[in-house]
Amino acid sequence: MVRYSALDRTFAALSDPTRRDILDRLAQGPATLGELAQPYDMTLPGLMKHVRVLEDAQLVVTEKKGRTRECRLGAEQLDDAAQWIDAYRRRWERRLDRLEGYLERQKGAPR
Amino acid sequence: MVRYSALDRTFAALSDPTRRDILDRLAQGPATLGELAQPYDMTLPGLMKHVRVLEDAQLVVTEKKGRTRECRLGAEQLDDAAQWIDAYRRRWERRLDRLEGYLERQKGAPR
Repeated sequence: MVRYSALDRTFAALSDPTRRDILDRLAQGPATLGELAQPYDMTLPGLMKHVRVLEDAQLVVTEKKGRTRECRLGAEQLDDAAQWIDAYRRRWERRLDRLEGYLERQKGAPR
Repeated sequence: MVRYSALDRTFAALSDPTRRDILDRLAQGPATLGELAQPYDMTLPGLMKHVRVLEDAQLVVTEKKGRTRECRLGAEQLDDAAQWIDAYRRRWERRLDRLEGYLERQKGAPR
């Protein structure tokens, strides 16, 4: 009964350093699978697994061009992930503010 | 040869909706494992697995208090995760700006 939301797939895709590296590389421009594989001590099938995870998360799009496959950044631009983190931090900061207010009032209260 | 960095653990911990829910709940204040389990159709051991993943990522701290275990938010406040996403988006936007500049110049160039 496991349902994977877009946010699950985004965070899971980002949880691997090779996949974060691939995104960094593609932020500079499109690259073929062979070009992406170059910096890593990794087989092409190994790299393709990572690319597929990024494709599932819509972070990367691939397109067959002749005998190569070109990869570029996809539609998902991490906005939802950034929003989730920001909202969480705001809630947590509000809680800290409330706690601080409470401690201040305790200090001011007669003993 | 797999090495898990703090960032890997943070993103992996955030890739599950139950774990994101638990963080949301704890942003409102500490809770026991039993209290955390209540909203879910989940056994206590099932919930504890999620809590352990959050503990490994330093997103949650747990402490035995008598017969219960209290959970609260930990030291890791998602700053690194937010910074990674922000830096990535900036690089990607810079690339789009460059691309736009290039297309503008092409338009202005004599045919």
